[in-house]
Amino acid sequence: MVEAAIARAKELNCKQNVAVVDDGGNLKAFGRMDGAPLLGTEGCQRKAFTALFGVGTKDFYNYIKGEQGLLIGLSHFSRVTVVGGGLPIMIDGEIIGGIGVGGGTEEQDIDCAKAGLKVLEQQ
Amino acid sequence: MVEAAIARAKELNCKQNVAVVDDGGNLKAFGRMDGAPLLGTEGCQRKAFTALFGVGTKDFYNYIKGEQGLLIGLSHFSRVTVVGGGLPIMIDGEIIGGIGVGGGTEEQDIDCAKAGLKVLEQQ
Amino acid sequence: MVEAAIARAKELNCKQNVAVVDDGGNLKAFGRMDGAPLLGTEGCQRKAFTALFGVGTKDFYNYIKGEQGLLIGLSHFSRVTVVGGGLPIMIDGEIIGGIGVGGGTEEQDIDCAKAGLKVLEQQ
Amino acid sequence: MVEAAIARAKELNCKQNVAVVDDGGNLKAFGRMDGAPLLGTEGCQRKAFTALFGVGTKDFYNYIKGEQGLLIGLSHFSRVTVVGGGLPIMIDGEIIGGIGVGGGTEEQDIDCAKAGLKVLEQQ
Repeated sequence: MVEAAIARAKELNCKQNVAVVDDGGNLKAFGRMDGAPLLGTEGCQRKAFTALFGVGTKDFYNYIKGEQGLLIGLSHFSRVTVVGGGLPIMIDGEIIGGIGVGGGTEEQDIDCAKAGLKVLEQQ
Repeated sequence: MVEAAIARAKELNCKQNVAVVDDGGNLKAFGRMDGAPLLGTEGCQRKAFTALFGVGTKDFYNYIKGEQGLLIGLSHFSRVTVVGGGLPIMIDGEIIGGIGVGGGTEEQDIDCAKAGLKVLEQQ
Repeated sequence: MVEAAIARAKELNCKQNVAVVDDGGNLKAFGRMDGAPLLGTEGCQRKAFTALFGVGTKDFYNYIKGEQGLLIGLSHFSRVTVVGGGLPIMIDGEIIGGIGVGGGTEEQDIDCAKAGLKVLEQQ
Repeated sequence: MVEAAIARAKELNCKQNVAVVDDGGNLKAFGRMDGAPLLGTEGCQRKAFTALFGVGTKDFYNYIKGEQGLLIGLSHFSRVTVVGGGLPIMIDGEIIGGIGVGGGTEEQDIDCAKAGLKVLEQQ
């Protein structure tokens, strides 16, 4: 999945950090492209963790953005982020992990995370 | 109290993390239902701690939300949250602890925390 | 100074945490009244530290609140807060420390911090 | 670079903290003027780190400020800030580090950071 996300990043001409966590929130796989921004290293891990909630981090943001208490409150949790680029990894409707991508624009991050997930469909 | 909150969560068909802290802010009891979101694990402990202030975390938010300095400032304290689902545990008007629930919607969290408190009334 | 702030808190009928830091930002004195809210324990230390900037934390907030980047950015520093109740300790125009009070309303916190500073005038 | 930034701070009559990080985000050089505010000590390091993203921290803020999710989300990363005063250090279009200045007004901080970068042009 990390390789697939990185392959997509190369197509988009951006430099990404990619993290995959298991259903216990522990890092399972990680890759940082040469020259990828360091702030995405923390970011992608937060995104992968947050996605364990069961929705993409951008959807998570859209869901809570209207309620300032949730937005400010949840953002303060130590491994959570409301920045897009994290997606849950699901098999048969069950959350088995999360993938997070950080380093490009929010759109590029989401695009690469989706590319990572596509590996599952091909199996 | 944890068991009562979890029993209520089952009725509501949601999966919760439940924390109880004593009046010193230290964890006294904790339970996580199978499949409960991990971000609620931190969240429910923050809620229980914050409730030691003497009000529910949702009331706490409503009280400070009009004053941006308080909202942003207090949210940054390391064990505090402004997300609903934390309630003080009081006996004879004295705060003896806090209960926090995290994993569902804010309404479900509050509902389950209240169910936890009801154990006290029955004694 | 801690004792003076606590004496004032008793007059105001609130329960306070009081911290004094030296000009190096290190804790010099601290007192927590029985029953004072635990979230003020961290809060008063953040306030005392932030006041080393040379202004009260409420004035600090008022100064930066119009510029969202500063407000959100500075609030994230690990020992800073924008909540009122911290005041610089100054002698002959030089900052020699900070006092912070937390546990009451913002007004009570500021009031007690001022009472702490009055000890200096009496010497 | 630190010396050049401090020399500029003396001209502006402000007291600064100055940090330089390498392209790995590790502290390379640091200087704090006598009397410089302690909260700038953390601030300048966050600014230098954040600037490794490739833009100044003020530009970074201006870029994300319209999108609340990014503003709140990215601000929570542990070494990031959206406060101006951090600039990337670039040679031939490549980011080789970051410089951050903290302790004055945002304008003064940026001014001093630019003065630090000018050392490069003179070589």
